[in-house]
Amino acid sequence: MKYNKKKNKCNGNRERDYGLMNPTIHDIAKRANVSISTVSRVVNNPLAVREEKRQRVLEAIKELGYEPNPFASGLRDRLTKTIVAIIPDIANPFYASMFRGIEDTAREQRNNVMICNTDRNEERFFEYMRYFKKKKVDGIIFASDPLKEHYYKGFEELNIPVVLAATKSEDHLLPYVKIDDYQAGYDAGMFLIRNGHKRIGMISGPKSDPIAGQPRYEGFLASLKKYERLADDSVVFGDFQYDSGYSGMGKLYGKHPDLTAVFAASDEMALGAMAFLQRRNIDVPRQVSVIGFDNIRFSRMITPPLTTISQPIYEIGKEAAMLLYDWIENRDTIPKGKQLQHELIVRDSVSNRNT
Amino acid sequence: MKYNKKKNKCNGNRERDYGLMNPTIHDIAKRANVSISTVSRVVNNPLAVREEKRQRVLEAIKELGYEPNPFASGLRDRLTKTIVAIIPDIANPFYASMFRGIEDTAREQRNNVMICNTDRNEERFFEYMRYFKKKKVDGIIFASDPLKEHYYKGFEELNIPVVLAATKSEDHLLPYVKIDDYQAGYDAGMFLIRNGHKRIGMISGPKSDPIAGQPRYEGFLASLKKYERLADDSVVFGDFQYDSGYSGMGKLYGKHPDLTAVFAASDEMALGAMAFLQRRNIDVPRQVSVIGFDNIRFSRMITPPLTTISQPIYEIGKEAAMLLYDWIENRDTIPKGKQLQHELIVRDSVSNRNT
Repeated sequence: MKYNKKKNKCNGNRERDYGLMNPTIHDIAKRANVSISTVSRVVNNPLAVREEKRQRVLEAIKELGYEPNPFASGLRDRLTKTIVAIIPDIANPFYASMFRGIEDTAREQRNNVMICNTDRNEERFFEYMRYFKKKKVDGIIFASDPLKEHYYKGFEELNIPVVLAATKSEDHLLPYVKIDDYQAGYDAGMFLIRNGHKRIGMISGPKSDPIAGQPRYEGFLASLKKYERLADDSVVFGDFQYDSGYSGMGKLYGKHPDLTAVFAASDEMALGAMAFLQRRNIDVPRQVSVIGFDNIRFSRMITPPLTTISQPIYEIGKEAAMLLYDWIENRDTIPKGKQLQHELIVRDSVSNRNT
Repeated sequence: MKYNKKKNKCNGNRERDYGLMNPTIHDIAKRANVSISTVSRVVNNPLAVREEKRQRVLEAIKELGYEPNPFASGLRDRLTKTIVAIIPDIANPFYASMFRGIEDTAREQRNNVMICNTDRNEERFFEYMRYFKKKKVDGIIFASDPLKEHYYKGFEELNIPVVLAATKSEDHLLPYVKIDDYQAGYDAGMFLIRNGHKRIGMISGPKSDPIAGQPRYEGFLASLKKYERLADDSVVFGDFQYDSGYSGMGKLYGKHPDLTAVFAASDEMALGAMAFLQRRNIDVPRQVSVIGFDNIRFSRMITPPLTTISQPIYEIGKEAAMLLYDWIENRDTIPKGKQLQHELIVRDSVSNRNT
């Protein structure tokens, strides 16, 4: 319903008497016992309002049936029709797939997407924030890195919707789209166990990474401990990139030449592990099996093709953008986060030892 | 020198008498026998002016010592501090490296870069053009695809500098940064010949592609013909992507099981060729050698690591952005194009048959 200011102004009192008119922002403020500007902030920038106050305002809005329609006040015209994807590493093909998902959703909205590559550099991040404060964008998708507290503050200042893709915040109510990394790590372990592997190692991401590091590590360990298949001291830590997988495999192999299988917490580290083994004429998977994580474009192109846990990267991007547009269109409702399903992609890099 | 309008207005006649004043746009128009708006167009959008007229205006500008300073009239303030990279396929890691080069240059200028991914879809391209017509950007880098005539027209309408990266136009004077693809193809062939290979095949890009298709094909053929090393009917054509390399190698091997070496015109096709061979237990490089083109991030990660022709992708992006900023700052001078040097990266996928 289009909110018609003029009409309400003329007939306001009469309609209010009959309870027919939409309640105004004044009515909400009165009922929730807050200032008008607080109501406005809850509608336009809910993140900037304390949880408890926000709840009170939201309840009043519900009780009185207030319909804050941002598009009535010309907000739709003020939209830039541009959203931004903030990614940590443009060279990682993982983000290319995610971007395709984001872009396809934006296309449906006839919107544009700008990519900002931070290189995990804080200065760059804040330069972008300054730029967007001036030029305006409609919303942001923040991809994959842990959301640091001062990053969150940066978003808050922009006063626009922000959705997290392949990451999540424990401290803030931002919507996210990601998989269950703990369960995925557990499933990787179970797959190796079901295939009869008895001495298993892992090349993990950093334990300090609460998204792709710790949960995959803990999930994997949980499965192995359950079946007592973990070799002592058979976890090494890398940074998700190729070289750390290569050197990590070297360390593991030096300590445990009897390992029959290794789980790498990223496909790039898995490629590094495979390269280490193959270049020493250790057959993959006959002698050592390798399972990765991510299902990047190249994981099917190597020989043997890599068995891996697939994150639905494209869908994560697509869903994140859909949540973002939901929020842009209904600024008073923060959309709920979504957990997407991971998938085990069985190719040829894990052997079956049961037969 | 800052061009001071007010002063000229006051003292114009006197100074003009003494020949001390900067000539005005009127003086240029008169000398070149064109309209004032033509002079303005030569200064602000030289592409929109016919070559012959443009030359006349540029000569008059030179003769009279006119200094059209766009920044004097506040153009610098009107700059958006944003440039755009138009790329055909975000999933191809080739463009990630190019983008890093572009971005590093933009950073030095404290500018932002927006990536637009066309997916080689014309409609998307023109949607971007419409968007930029409204929102403005300072300049565009157009990457790697042939510049179609109506794309050029689209750029012309925007009336901003455009630089071509890893591509070139035969019909238009746009600056470009690229390698010599013919010479690079020739060098790939010579490398195989010097390593004693006698029966050599090629997986080429499409001959209809005047940038990465035809010149690499012709350069390669020239080297092989010179030494009569080309097997009859031993060139197949792909689309630069993995699957076409895989199937292309299948076709070649079916016809010529005695080939000892293959040149693939992209690394992705080379990976496809290697996968075809390795999955049939044909040893690379002992039985068949493979040389690629591009030096993408993954070419060193496979086993054996891929010998390839490296395009200096990062530098191409960096130089293209530098030319673009030159042009943005001096709108009256179209910068000259640059040819960068390719490099042969010798890894382990080509065997030496001389020994």
